[in-house]
Amino acid sequence: MRLSNLFMPTRKEDPADAEVVSHKLLVRGAYIRMVTRGIYDFLPLGWKSVRKIEAIIREEMDRAGAQEVRLPAVQPAELWEESGRWQEYGPELLRFKDRKGSEYCLGPTHEEVMTNLIRNDVGSYKDLPLNLYQIQTKFRDETRPRFGLMRGREFIMKDAYSFDIDEESAKVSYQQMYDAYQRIFDRLGFEYAAVEADSGNIGGSLSHEFQVLAETGEDEIVRCVECDYAANVEKAETRPTEVSEATGEQLEMATVDTPGAKTIEEISAFLDVPASNCVKTLLFHVADQTVAVLVRGDHVVNEIKLTAFLREQLKVDAAAKENKEDAKPFELNMASDAQVKAATGAPVGFAGPVGLEIPVFADLEVQALSNFVVGANAADKHHTNVNHGRDFEVTAFADLRLAQAGDLCARCGGTFESHRGIEVGHVFYLGTKYSDAMGAGVQDQNGKMQSLKMGCYGIGVTRILAAVVEQNHDKNGIIWPMAIAPYQVIVLPLQMKNEEVIEAGEKIYAELQDAGIDVLLDDRKAGAGSKFKDADLVGIPVRIAIGSRGLKEGMVEVKVRSAAENEDIPLADAVEYIKTLVAQQS
Amino acid sequence: MRLSNLFMPTRKEDPADAEVVSHKLLVRGAYIRMVTRGIYDFLPLGWKSVRKIEAIIREEMDRAGAQEVRLPAVQPAELWEESGRWQEYGPELLRFKDRKGSEYCLGPTHEEVMTNLIRNDVGSYKDLPLNLYQIQTKFRDETRPRFGLMRGREFIMKDAYSFDIDEESAKVSYQQMYDAYQRIFDRLGFEYAAVEADSGNIGGSLSHEFQVLAETGEDEIVRCVECDYAANVEKAETRPTEVSEATGEQLEMATVDTPGAKTIEEISAFLDVPASNCVKTLLFHVADQTVAVLVRGDHVVNEIKLTAFLREQLKVDAAAKENKEDAKPFELNMASDAQVKAATGAPVGFAGPVGLEIPVFADLEVQALSNFVVGANAADKHHTNVNHGRDFEVTAFADLRLAQAGDLCARCGGTFESHRGIEVGHVFYLGTKYSDAMGAGVQDQNGKMQSLKMGCYGIGVTRILAAVVEQNHDKNGIIWPMAIAPYQVIVLPLQMKNEEVIEAGEKIYAELQDAGIDVLLDDRKAGAGSKFKDADLVGIPVRIAIGSRGLKEGMVEVKVRSAAENEDIPLADAVEYIKTLVAQQS
Repeated sequence: MRLSNLFMPTRKEDPADAEVVSHKLLVRGAYIRMVTRGIYDFLPLGWKSVRKIEAIIREEMDRAGAQEVRLPAVQPAELWEESGRWQEYGPELLRFKDRKGSEYCLGPTHEEVMTNLIRNDVGSYKDLPLNLYQIQTKFRDETRPRFGLMRGREFIMKDAYSFDIDEESAKVSYQQMYDAYQRIFDRLGFEYAAVEADSGNIGGSLSHEFQVLAETGEDEIVRCVECDYAANVEKAETRPTEVSEATGEQLEMATVDTPGAKTIEEISAFLDVPASNCVKTLLFHVADQTVAVLVRGDHVVNEIKLTAFLREQLKVDAAAKENKEDAKPFELNMASDAQVKAATGAPVGFAGPVGLEIPVFADLEVQALSNFVVGANAADKHHTNVNHGRDFEVTAFADLRLAQAGDLCARCGGTFESHRGIEVGHVFYLGTKYSDAMGAGVQDQNGKMQSLKMGCYGIGVTRILAAVVEQNHDKNGIIWPMAIAPYQVIVLPLQMKNEEVIEAGEKIYAELQDAGIDVLLDDRKAGAGSKFKDADLVGIPVRIAIGSRGLKEGMVEVKVRSAAENEDIPLADAVEYIKTLVAQQS
Repeated sequence: MRLSNLFMPTRKEDPADAEVVSHKLLVRGAYIRMVTRGIYDFLPLGWKSVRKIEAIIREEMDRAGAQEVRLPAVQPAELWEESGRWQEYGPELLRFKDRKGSEYCLGPTHEEVMTNLIRNDVGSYKDLPLNLYQIQTKFRDETRPRFGLMRGREFIMKDAYSFDIDEESAKVSYQQMYDAYQRIFDRLGFEYAAVEADSGNIGGSLSHEFQVLAETGEDEIVRCVECDYAANVEKAETRPTEVSEATGEQLEMATVDTPGAKTIEEISAFLDVPASNCVKTLLFHVADQTVAVLVRGDHVVNEIKLTAFLREQLKVDAAAKENKEDAKPFELNMASDAQVKAATGAPVGFAGPVGLEIPVFADLEVQALSNFVVGANAADKHHTNVNHGRDFEVTAFADLRLAQAGDLCARCGGTFESHRGIEVGHVFYLGTKYSDAMGAGVQDQNGKMQSLKMGCYGIGVTRILAAVVEQNHDKNGIIWPMAIAPYQVIVLPLQMKNEEVIEAGEKIYAELQDAGIDVLLDDRKAGAGSKFKDADLVGIPVRIAIGSRGLKEGMVEVKVRSAAENEDIPLADAVEYIKTLVAQQS
């Protein structure tokens, strides 16, 4: 492609709303343009890279035995009502009516439509296993779209769904996808971790996220330095501190004035007690009651674990079953000021477990503490030397906190280190959640109906574009891996008034094209400086610059975008040299 | 691909709602499934053919110098308000609000988003000409989705937009697209016509439709048997009958009783006057007034021509401009019973021009008539021997009718024949409609701002799948052209208990795969009859059947799907023979 024809409107300035480097460079490098919040145009360069990402995904999905289909973006409400998600799904699900008043949504995911397809057309165990995938535009009406393609509203996703006769076979399908994902992310050149994950809205039990490690990632993950365990902090299993019955002498509880000290940092400093010997008391309102939750001062409550735990403890699901009509979505909210006052008799900020008459749930790490500090349910007062069992009763202990760096690995006892990650892929084992709800079953070998065992597998195609840039850039611009660079090589004739320079450029351009290389020729009548700048910004992996000075000695300059130095190569050898470079990096 | 692994749930029964053959065969052949009205799943076979169609379109668009981009499916209302189409576009535009209450639509077309992209990133004539295209999911909320993929609500379209500095250059861009479309439809093996068309909602002046000729087509087109002129009947220019001043003696007008005769057929039969010497009087209500429109009894009013004509005549646009706030969309409606009664004093069905006090507009062919029959504005009465100018005044004559078979070509005087067509492509010259409305201009050579001259070019990708089937099928199923068949060859081992048959099938399958041929192996444990049936239904272009009887003599049976007879070919030559067949048809 000749740059004089290419629609490549690079920019010098970062977009005003850009917070992360991928957003800045993809806009400046003429890859994307914002249309409105969280919705983008892909320009020729951006779309070319997206298609290369898609091609890699297709190859590996096909290799793993999955078959490509295309389901609609617009989905009828009835299917979502069958699965129960029309009610459960929050406002991220964009809903609307057609001209006849029928209800629809823009698909953020396709479990319902896929299960519907299968239940109508698969009847026997002989048709299984089956794995269908699509690459398609999805929509999630995020509250706060941001970071460019990292958290957009309209985005492209590859989603696959597997159907098996039993759990054993379903786990094989899961593993095939897990392996395919590893091949995909390896080919994309990512530094990533496959981490155990919470399965969120989609439901199911077994689940891994593929997290690209990057400082700007929105997810926090922990990785064991000893074994290969890695997990989202929401899911990570830690080895709790052992609770020794003889932790030592229980000292006498005291009540102390702590004027102006409210946060754990302030209390810890004021009383000269480490945060790990203070206990936070958090009040939540859930299922029409207020409950207290205790975690160590240096720990953070894991709302996902807590929600699952409270559903169980408060028998919410059983209640909902009995009284289906009134069932509201199970919502966990921080207690309001009035609810705090009602439960503790004190203003917000001084809650503590001593004397409370509501259920008190505590994290396992609290169980190992003695003689700790808690709020005294009175303004500017705390208790010290508090002990559970003696000074207050805990309704139940459970793992209720987020893992963090320094925690011990539940598997091997090694230490966790923490990373930020960008989720680019997710594999779930769904079991029979959708097949039961929607009546998708097949006859087994004995003629008995069996609910299909399902898995679902997503990859954020357009998010990958951003994740690659987060991991591959320098101050001058993007550094594409060869596999998904929009063009592999850029040829820069530096003096567009010099016939020899132009001719040499045209010749190399033609020869590289003939060799099947994706090559750009910067034939614009621009200065050498601005050609170099654009080539770096746009991030083409190999650059070949042809200048009149070098040509006099029969030399051209080749620079690999990721390398520090360039090399002078004889003009006659340039094409062969570049072909080798491209092959090496592909 | 092995059929035992392929998700290919063929069916024996036509879907209950299917009216056209493509709908029936695409469902039965496991290409598509309906999700809800006008919204379909594409199964592996269907999607594979769609991707082959897309590939052909991409190649020809790229060859013509267009660049691929991807714009969002969800579009903000503001852009449509700028162009004026948020108001103008009817309920086919699916509109909705996001969680914050902002308004959006699901794009049925992308002029606004494309113009918005260009106005922000193209500043100079040096950046032109520019042609950007995308292949993408669109949505039109049709009142009556039907005919499967022919008139769906969600569908895939290729849309391209060209931007030029002046009209001359824009017409070159238009012609490039016209030529590319011809190459595309030639490669798809269509029998089609490029016809002059009305440009409908999109606006603009120069426009051609690419119509695939098929009985089930929704469009009616006329084609001259002498020259190469073809046009949609809505647009076709006919040569009006010459108006001779001395048409002969004007007879005396009479009023006759015509009890029970209301339609032209009835009047014509009752009075024994040819329909072509009767005149229909149609009353329309438009811009707050009732008007009469006259066409010959054997002609049909062209509402598109009439709308354009009345806009002009009634100075609706000028009025709208003066009083912008109140401007309503210009709507042409048949007069209500009450309006007919008010204008004619008679019930519906007896209107005639004599004595009317409202504007009377007449088609050019009426001008050539004398001594004709019209309604008498009284129940069960008609006038005979009526003459315009003498018995009533015509406000204006104009071309107000649909062309039809037998009309004379305006270009050469040849005769029109009529066809039904399926519109698969459309090219428009838009001029500055969008660039003016949205402020998209560039500096010309003299530094002066010029509005961009735009063209837009659409191809109905998924509709093509249906159109191909309409043109290529027999009673047994689909007959794919090689270029877009999901698989080029199918290998049928007929006896799956015979080791020799299985082995021969596997060998041919492997060799054809190695030769780069898209091949299916029907390795299912099914009977020969059902394998033949499925192969015919699904429509694979070349079938090779391997039976134990033939093998004894070293022969296999090759059948080209479109041929009447099959051929016995020595097993040893089969692969070479098939490679040649595939190459010939590609």
